[in-house]
Amino acid sequence: MFGLASLPYGVFSDGGDGDDARVGVRIGDSVLDLARALGDEVFGEPSLNAFMAQGRARWTEVRARITELLTAGQPGERHRGAAEAALRPLSAVRLHLPFTPGDYVDFFGNEYHAANAGRIFRPDGEPLTPNWKHMPIGYHGRSGTIVLSGTPVTRPCGQRRGSAGPTFGPSRRLDFEAEVGFVVGAGASGPVPVSEFAEHVFGVFLLNDWSSRDLQAWESQPLGPFLAKSFATSVSPWVVPLEALEHARISPPPRDPEPLPYLADAGPWGLDLALEVRLNGQPVARPPFATTYWTAAQMLAHMTVNGASIRTGDLFGSGTVSGPDRDQRGCLLELSWGGAEPLTLADGSVRTFLEDGDEVAISATAPAADGTRIGFGEVTGQIRPADHP
Amino acid sequence: MFGLASLPYGVFSDGGDGDDARVGVRIGDSVLDLARALGDEVFGEPSLNAFMAQGRARWTEVRARITELLTAGQPGERHRGAAEAALRPLSAVRLHLPFTPGDYVDFFGNEYHAANAGRIFRPDGEPLTPNWKHMPIGYHGRSGTIVLSGTPVTRPCGQRRGSAGPTFGPSRRLDFEAEVGFVVGAGASGPVPVSEFAEHVFGVFLLNDWSSRDLQAWESQPLGPFLAKSFATSVSPWVVPLEALEHARISPPPRDPEPLPYLADAGPWGLDLALEVRLNGQPVARPPFATTYWTAAQMLAHMTVNGASIRTGDLFGSGTVSGPDRDQRGCLLELSWGGAEPLTLADGSVRTFLEDGDEVAISATAPAADGTRIGFGEVTGQIRPADHP
Repeated sequence: MFGLASLPYGVFSDGGDGDDARVGVRIGDSVLDLARALGDEVFGEPSLNAFMAQGRARWTEVRARITELLTAGQPGERHRGAAEAALRPLSAVRLHLPFTPGDYVDFFGNEYHAANAGRIFRPDGEPLTPNWKHMPIGYHGRSGTIVLSGTPVTRPCGQRRGSAGPTFGPSRRLDFEAEVGFVVGAGASGPVPVSEFAEHVFGVFLLNDWSSRDLQAWESQPLGPFLAKSFATSVSPWVVPLEALEHARISPPPRDPEPLPYLADAGPWGLDLALEVRLNGQPVARPPFATTYWTAAQMLAHMTVNGASIRTGDLFGSGTVSGPDRDQRGCLLELSWGGAEPLTLADGSVRTFLEDGDEVAISATAPAADGTRIGFGEVTGQIRPADHP
Repeated sequence: MFGLASLPYGVFSDGGDGDDARVGVRIGDSVLDLARALGDEVFGEPSLNAFMAQGRARWTEVRARITELLTAGQPGERHRGAAEAALRPLSAVRLHLPFTPGDYVDFFGNEYHAANAGRIFRPDGEPLTPNWKHMPIGYHGRSGTIVLSGTPVTRPCGQRRGSAGPTFGPSRRLDFEAEVGFVVGAGASGPVPVSEFAEHVFGVFLLNDWSSRDLQAWESQPLGPFLAKSFATSVSPWVVPLEALEHARISPPPRDPEPLPYLADAGPWGLDLALEVRLNGQPVARPPFATTYWTAAQMLAHMTVNGASIRTGDLFGSGTVSGPDRDQRGCLLELSWGGAEPLTLADGSVRTFLEDGDEVAISATAPAADGTRIGFGEVTGQIRPADHP
């Protein structure tokens, strides 16, 4: 899962206050200290941003150099080569947010999720809005509340619709959303064509877009979700470089209708990632990212076609990943059909939405050229009770 | 306008590449170089953030010290006191973005604007959505495209609704939105009660939330505005400290219904700011900020009530400022009633939406205790033709 085909980047420290946080690469159950192994101060930074800003050619060069380091030495002892002195056991380090977030955009690019959400939130309307097949619908999220996997998530308070007017209190319909995230390495001052995706996006990670469905249902008209999602967004500690996913590239679902020319596919940028969601350790969904209608390349092209610039550290989420089957749905809203069809877990416990103490873990793997699987690790979070008195 | 009652903060350099950008205070047509006048390195930073992070007590202390410096010396020559050596003529400096933006939230807090927009966008529905009188509706905007007043604004391209499916091209309904902006100085890890507004918000500025109405009308369902607003947001160079606006504080419009307790007013945080919008030098609107239904203190309380943290440099806009009269409407959408009622300017030119070359200037003043007016300066921007071939 974390062999030579993967080599995801992260930020780690020796523990304590994190003052020594620096860039590492995961190999097996170890972290390669890149500042030490490569002697380049860009890896001594407490975020990937400085390295990501160096661009595609440099990313390729560094990945080749790391591979070389890790395969040096005796046959069968590939990790014991020149890099050995720079390896630290994963169990001995503390992980940090891998990048300093710029703007965070969340898309809504999976047709199964969008149609299910439409059926649940707008039962009398068409499942998809008229624009959905013409553009990747998205909105801006809150960057300042992006947290590392493992950070506890406090149940948000807010307004819920009530028969005699809104009431205030802890959310009663707290949900997760299993998403795939993309982080911009090399910025751009304007439009990034679909064909230039890989020049700008550094890598891929997992994202849980925690959502309060009761807050969302009451607040979202006319300007979209706000407090329903701004309390926390969790990201996985390891960023898988785009280059590692070459073998996972697939054609996205057939386009009907053909999108406008600026959104035309330029090479297959669908990704065959297999996600798994576990609730308190029990599998509840296996969302297939391959079903996602809009590719990340189309999302980036759309996001910038109006002239908006992008910066190193900007990130965007795919939107909840779902598939045609019930056990492929990437959020409880869909899994419990808006709360109408409670879910029974393997241990017999029943859920419509998240309860205090629940822990959600989203993981993913992708196929590698050598027949192994590439691991993304996981993004986890446990729900703490609301702070509301 | 820029007398001792005002003393807004900004960032300036001696020109050139801006390497020497540092914090200054405007007095008359001069800038007081604070690093030089006060000998504190926090003012040698190229943004207000480090100073803003120091908190309310420090803001008060610095303002008192600046006032003292500027009033020393002979009677009638108050600017010729101890500060003289640190004064630079405004005409000799270059201004910069005053703060490094964190998250940017745009509210929709003015009832006249919200109701007019509702009537225009949803002619068959109620002008206000059911939630509007219960909470300040808002959404996250794009921080990375916040630009300083005077930066040219390129007409965005995007999808517009068409009878035979969407078409792509330059926006045909480009608009300004006259707003008042608020910047967070001291961060918070969770809810900021209405009563603690002044402990966290450093100051007030002007904001033009450029908007493409044709992109907006097609993209906004179900997740709100995205590309219609993300191409550029302009801010004024001078941040008026909250303390300067003590005399401008007024009761907001009567609340009906009373909001939930967490949004109850705690002291009057309405602000009696008089805005003016000029298009190519000709006045087109005089929006009265006093009409804004939700106060900035309520906006901040709402934005954080779900537990969302705020950081130094986070900013939020009031939403378009409009009043009951036609010439008090703060955007062309309302002024031309969705394009149906073209506007004739003083020079005889006619507009529904912005044309290439048009320049928009939004200015504001507020009453001061000494009978003078406090100037906010202005936020300007000129429309450049689309880059689309």
